[in-house]
Amino acid sequence: MIIAFQGEPGAYSEEAALALFGSEFETLPRRTFESVFEAVRRSEADMGLVPIENTLAGSIHRNYDLLLRYDLNIVAEFQLRVRHCLLALPSVQVSDLRQVWSHPQALAQCEGYLTRLKGVEAVASEDTAGSARRIREGGLMDVAAIASRRAAMVYEMSVLAEGIEDDDANFTRFLALATEPVRPEENAKTSIVFSLDNRPGALYAALQGFALQGVNLTKIESRPLVGRPWEYLFYLDFEGAPTDEAVGAALDTLANGTRTFRLLGAYPRHIWNPKAESGRS
Amino acid sequence: MIIAFQGEPGAYSEEAALALFGSEFETLPRRTFESVFEAVRRSEADMGLVPIENTLAGSIHRNYDLLLRYDLNIVAEFQLRVRHCLLALPSVQVSDLRQVWSHPQALAQCEGYLTRLKGVEAVASEDTAGSARRIREGGLMDVAAIASRRAAMVYEMSVLAEGIEDDDANFTRFLALATEPVRPEENAKTSIVFSLDNRPGALYAALQGFALQGVNLTKIESRPLVGRPWEYLFYLDFEGAPTDEAVGAALDTLANGTRTFRLLGAYPRHIWNPKAESGRS
Repeated sequence: MIIAFQGEPGAYSEEAALALFGSEFETLPRRTFESVFEAVRRSEADMGLVPIENTLAGSIHRNYDLLLRYDLNIVAEFQLRVRHCLLALPSVQVSDLRQVWSHPQALAQCEGYLTRLKGVEAVASEDTAGSARRIREGGLMDVAAIASRRAAMVYEMSVLAEGIEDDDANFTRFLALATEPVRPEENAKTSIVFSLDNRPGALYAALQGFALQGVNLTKIESRPLVGRPWEYLFYLDFEGAPTDEAVGAALDTLANGTRTFRLLGAYPRHIWNPKAESGRS
Repeated sequence: MIIAFQGEPGAYSEEAALALFGSEFETLPRRTFESVFEAVRRSEADMGLVPIENTLAGSIHRNYDLLLRYDLNIVAEFQLRVRHCLLALPSVQVSDLRQVWSHPQALAQCEGYLTRLKGVEAVASEDTAGSARRIREGGLMDVAAIASRRAAMVYEMSVLAEGIEDDDANFTRFLALATEPVRPEENAKTSIVFSLDNRPGALYAALQGFALQGVNLTKIESRPLVGRPWEYLFYLDFEGAPTDEAVGAALDTLANGTRTFRLLGAYPRHIWNPKAESGRS
């Protein structure tokens, strides 16, 4: 089975794919989010794994847009605790370092740790795993990368420190996508998207069925529709699946009042919080 | 009057500050978002301007967190159409270029344009305005930066092309912050944040007052409360001000059902869409 992800080998998305599906699966790196969706649509991959939300950075609207444009189904949700690692070539010590390379967001998330590394310059780069690759390719003995533990394995580097992010509430929510829907047995969640007229009370009326049926909402987010200034798009996640009686009834009530409606998927959820295998002191 | 912003001189936040308040105001660059809030709290600046949401990238949760931690008031909202420019030292032609430097997000937003520039390498850097500054400092004649028109002025560079972003629905919403609240006269909007118990129907009940009073919601977003897994935080924006009778009544109804409630501000809104002064062909 092949799972497409965005980024280079060793990217956090690949780490997530392997943690979710197991290392017996093959991963397929793709340069853009859209080419991940494209690979699944064309059956070049059995599934795609894309990040949809990060606790620190917020929702990734680009992938919500692609969910709307591609007729794929969410088949699993996966929350990954992002643990940044400081990677260097074997035998390199922290005291040898003159630069640390990574994506600006990863550098920002490790700002406290980097400040304590005296005399080491933080240098922005295109991505986390790509920084590790370039250090390996160049045989650089005075540069480290901030990247995933997976990247250390891919580029045969050692992990000088792990969990160097300032904020330990750093989780990314990934969605697995496939052409066919699944029927989750337990721990199910459902994602829908719908649009409403921009009038007072429209959202209140739309949520009525969920309140009456006792369905628990887990996420709501509104977004103005580009080019249609009087319409709004709502992303809604809730517990349960449309095959549950209460959910089915709530969706029936909702459907009456929406302009557009789309079921993005009903799926099981997983949470994965990697333990520090070699922690910092 | 002094307005603090995050970034280097020439950053998009500075461009927004000058467009909103006029160029007679002094701008104060700060390295982090938190130091913008800090500068306002300590009265080192009269106002701070921070981005809160981008149409392509989504909400900037970091600034929502800081809004909660600092007791400041939102005093204006400002939507800036982000127009990326290709900047180079005077006399440099597009055909001279070997590299383009910018923040990875800006590079990604101009991917189509950059692909058409044959033989030019896109290189990630810490930020947009900082790329322009380094080209100026190094006197580099074969490198361009993607940055704001304001950065061209600050670093005395020429604008080789303007509006080179792939998607013209690229807007950033900025909030102006001050220690004292304002009373908006017209075109008012209000932002609140509140938490609810995680039980079915809680959000529905919270929105009832707004529906009954005919108050139009413009944004809603939920976020799990870190460390308190059974509570949720909701950000809500709506039209009008608490001094309006309908809004006041809706807020009274809401207050009965919330665990925590905070008025972030009532403020006027502005939209600014810079026209291309020297367009690309």
